[in-house]
Formats: sequence, structure tokens, C-alpha cells
Amino acid sequence: MIRAASKKIVVIGGGTGNFVVLRGLKKYPLDLTAIVSMADDGGSTGILRDELGVLPPGDVRQCLVALSNSSRLMRSLMNYRFENGGLGGHSFGNLLLSALEKVTGSFEKAVEEAGKILYINGKVIPVTMNQVRLKMVLNNRKVLEGEREIYLSQEIDQGYKTIYLEPYPKVNPKVIEEIDSADLVVIGPGGLHTSLIPNLLVEGVSDAICQSDAKKVFVLNLMNRKGQTGGYKASHYLHELVRFLGKDVFDHILINVEKPPKELIDVYANEGELVENDLQDGRILEAHMLGAVAAMAKKDLLKRNLIRHDSNKLAQELMKIVDHI
Amino acid sequence: MIRAASKKIVVIGGGTGNFVVLRGLKKYPLDLTAIVSMADDGGSTGILRDELGVLPPGDVRQCLVALSNSSRLMRSLMNYRFENGGLGGHSFGNLLLSALEKVTGSFEKAVEEAGKILYINGKVIPVTMNQVRLKMVLNNRKVLEGEREIYLSQEIDQGYKTIYLEPYPKVNPKVIEEIDSADLVVIGPGGLHTSLIPNLLVEGVSDAICQSDAKKVFVLNLMNRKGQTGGYKASHYLHELVRFLGKDVFDHILINVEKPPKELIDVYANEGELVENDLQDGRILEAHMLGAVAAMAKKDLLKRNLIRHDSNKLAQELMKIVDHI
Repeated sequence: MIRAASKKIVVIGGGTGNFVVLRGLKKYPLDLTAIVSMADDGGSTGILRDELGVLPPGDVRQCLVALSNSSRLMRSLMNYRFENGGLGGHSFGNLLLSALEKVTGSFEKAVEEAGKILYINGKVIPVTMNQVRLKMVLNNRKVLEGEREIYLSQEIDQGYKTIYLEPYPKVNPKVIEEIDSADLVVIGPGGLHTSLIPNLLVEGVSDAICQSDAKKVFVLNLMNRKGQTGGYKASHYLHELVRFLGKDVFDHILINVEKPPKELIDVYANEGELVENDLQDGRILEAHMLGAVAAMAKKDLLKRNLIRHDSNKLAQELMKIVDHI
Repeated sequence: MIRAASKKIVVIGGGTGNFVVLRGLKKYPLDLTAIVSMADDGGSTGILRDELGVLPPGDVRQCLVALSNSSRLMRSLMNYRFENGGLGGHSFGNLLLSALEKVTGSFEKAVEEAGKILYINGKVIPVTMNQVRLKMVLNNRKVLEGEREIYLSQEIDQGYKTIYLEPYPKVNPKVIEEIDSADLVVIGPGGLHTSLIPNLLVEGVSDAICQSDAKKVFVLNLMNRKGQTGGYKASHYLHELVRFLGKDVFDHILINVEKPPKELIDVYANEGELVENDLQDGRILEAHMLGAVAAMAKKDLLKRNLIRHDSNKLAQELMKIVDHI
């Protein structure tokens, strides 16, 4: 394939949403960059931040694995979680990034070296090199401290006054360069308040997106999370992003229209519901992009992973946009 | 260099002694194999054995690093020790080996994969794949359980009745193949009871060494350890090895004759004293093989590391033997 060989795609997010987009796009001859939120402070990542003072490795690890061309074994190794003792809960990839940060003295260098070890196809760039915490002030004046606390809150869809990173972080200058020179910027899917918006809270990122000549596409989430984005429709997601971008910059909004089986929606009912599209806009691109869930595996999967994008189908739709640039 | 391109050297031991021999020999065009004791149960390795049920990674890690042709950064990473929290004390390389063991389901496969990651020049072969503990019954009937307890005992030079591995381990079949086909077998330097003898306690290893056509060389330790080999001379070391080998098989005994500066010996005085050579044998090879200790670093080094072989000088002496095979 020659098409789009030199097209530069910048994917902005964090967490599993990024993983799905990158894993699909990796198969095309693109110049791929993942820009990753640095607000994670839960689980293994949170412990490493607290105990070792390192920058959060978890979301970066997922992007590295998504872009990796190394063996299946190496990718399994990166995601392997120790089960017992003092190591319990830590994923090996997180430990690799944290040890590399200690040995090289820089998280940026650590990500670069881990990228070499994993033969990644593309770049992974932390949005900031500052140690930041995500904070949110709810309408009821309660202050939520840390991404984990925000992620677990059941009150966010009651409204919040503000969300910010503390201390106010300097952007990693490479982020601005990448956005400036991009042909396509992809935002989403991903946790709205915990993965997408935290990138836009870093100094200069929203301005860079607004000023870039790149086409901008928003990939709408499949599911709302109860207590977080409960009852949100497409317009609510768009409205929130525009609030932090400063401007509605999206050229396209990519929306899945494939309905999951009713039994899956039922299983998910305590977690949240499907996002409805209430937008009727020339920008809306509708497509069938649902990932298949092996019936046998259902019981074993986390509910939040049951309904998700198929990375290949999602990438195909994004490539249709790329081909028209 | 063409000489000895096809000569097969098997180095038997464990711990830092192995590291010094392998690091020096790595620079020559040899077919190098490290056979590694699996009795370690101290520090990071002991915790991983207890908490994760893995085989002991520590000595294997040191051999892998010694044979590695990867970047200096990768070698530093392997030896990096986490300082705080639940990870405190673990070396990254130990975690790599343990995670690989969990992901591949086999320690042997884990060592092989780690060898690829580190581009090792040679092979590292665990002497057994059984979970073993080293035990020692002293003359006073006290039983020491575990390599760590034996290593820390101050009574061993008062005499012991027996030392054994429990359960009695099956040898890794590759060990026998390697010894059978070796041109030179190198035993030592290293902790006599904690690194050298534990290999000879594995079923079939001593017989294989005795029956191999390989030349056999014993590299005598530089220092005795108080409470362990206190007062031992060359003949005592030889006598103990022969006890477990079943036969005096050594073609050469390589002994350092370079005297460390008196101030270093003084610093070491509480730990132990220089090993004297009381053998006068056609097999004795005397050489200057002492490692230089940077004066500035003295304070920071562990005492037991102050007086050690220079890996290059030691390798040169071993290559003189190889060149005559």
C-alpha cells in the first residue's frame, strides 16, 4: 500500500480508547503519534507514582503495546500483572517504564527506550513531563482529587464547576510540533473527564489543535458511564470538548451505529447505557464499528470491556478520512 | 581473532564469581556456557521465590548481564534496584525473569527469552529446574536452612557433617550435554558452599564433570570469608571440591599471586583474609589477576567487593589454557 504513506496522524487520549485506535491504525503505512494524558493515578500506576515518585506509566504502556511490532510474548509480558506479595497488581510494563525512568533520569527517555525494546511503529509522547493531579470541583462544591477518585465518582453527571490539573502543567514541546504538522488529529474514544479532557487542560494543547491545519475527528464513545456521563448524548460530548478546546474544531464526528445484542446491553445496565446520537450535521460519519465479543468469554470480561470498538473497523473508517486529505 | 573460535567453555558457579569469569571470556570468540546454581534464596530472589513461587532469578541475571552485548543502558536496567515501597530491593532483571517465567510457564524459556532481549553471547543454563533449598548440618548438629542462612553463618569453618539440596534435584539435561561436549570446564571463583558446591549436589553433575574429556580448571578464590572458609588454604578448597566431585579431576589450578595493598587487606580484616596457596603441584598456574580498585570508590564499595579478580586478566590466563587444548 502506497496511499497515505506520508500522512501524519496524531491520536490524543489515554487508556483503552487510545489502544483500540492505535492498534487498528498501526497496520497502515502512516506516521503515527500517540499523545497521552499524564493524569492517571489509579492502581499500579498510582502506587508507582506515590512510592517511587515516577511519572504515570500505565497509559503510555498501553500505547506502546498497541504500536508494538515485537513478538506476542513481549506484548503479553508488558501487560503481565504480578499476582502476589509486594509486587501484586503491578504490570510488568509499568515496572519497565519506571525502572527506565530511574536509570535514564527522564520519563521521556524511558518512553523512547521502551519504544525501541518493543519495536514500536510510531511515537508515544506524554502530554506533559510535570507531575500533575487531576482535580474536579462539583456543583455541590465537593472537590474530587485525582483521576481515580473522579473515575469512581457517581456524581459527575450532576454537573461540575471546573476540572483542572494541579500544578498547571507545561506542555511537552514535542506535542505542539506533532499537532502542528499533523494531517489528522483523532480525539477519542475514551473516558471524557479522565482520558480526553486532561490532555486539553495542559497549557497550549487546545490552542495548538485549533490552529493546526490538520483535519480533526472526534470518535464518539459507545457507552455512557453511570454517574459520569449518564444520559449524555453526542451533543453533550461535543459540547464538553468544545468547552475545553475553546472552539468547535471538528471536521468529522465518527459515530458507531451498530447495535450490540440486547443481552450485552442488559449485562451492562448497571454500568451505563448506549450513547445516543442527537446530532444531525454534515460532519457526522456513521459506521458499523462494533467489536465482536466471544460468547464464551463474556463471563470473564470486565463489563466495561464488553461493548467496544473493533480496532480494524474503526481504523478503516479513519482511513477513509485520511484518503480524502 | 580466529584462535579457539570453536572451543567450548563451560563455566560452573553462581553469583559474582561467575560474572567476573564470563565478562572476561565474552570478549573472545568462544562457545560459552554458564551453568548456574539454583540454590539462591536471599534478598530480592528469596522474596520472589516465596511470594511468586518462581525459580531463583538472581544468579542467572548476573550471568545474562555478563554475557550481554546490549547497550550499557540495558545492562544498567537489568541491575537496577528499586528503592522504595513494595518493590524495594528488587532488581529489575529479577522481575523480568520472574514475569517471563509466569508468561511463558517455564523458567528455562524465560532465561532463553531474556537472553534474546539482552543479545547474549553464549548460553545460560540453570543447573536444575526443581525448586530446591540448600541445607547444611553442622558438626554441632545445628541445621542451617537455605543458602542465605548458610551464607551468613559464622560457624561453618568449625566443620559440617553434610550439605545437600532438598528435594534431591534432577539435573537439567542440557547441563550434561554441555559438560560432555566442553573443551574446558571452569569451576570458581565463588562462594565455596553457596555457589560452587550447590552445582555439584545436583544428580549427575559431578559424574558428568569426571567423565568429560574437557580440561578442568579450578580458579581459586582470593579471599576467605570469616566463619565460612576462615583459615582455608588452597588445599582445603581443593579437598572440599574433590569430596563432592568424587575425584580430583583438575588439570589446572589457577591462583592469583598479586598482593593487594596492605590498606585494603586491613579494611577487609573483619570479613576475612587472603587465601594462601599451600599446594606445590605441576597443575598450579600462578598469575597476576587482581582487579584495580579506584581509590575514590573504596568507601562506597562493599567490603567483599574490594578485592576481586580483574575479569580481563583472568580471561587472559584462561585463554592460555584454551590455546593449548
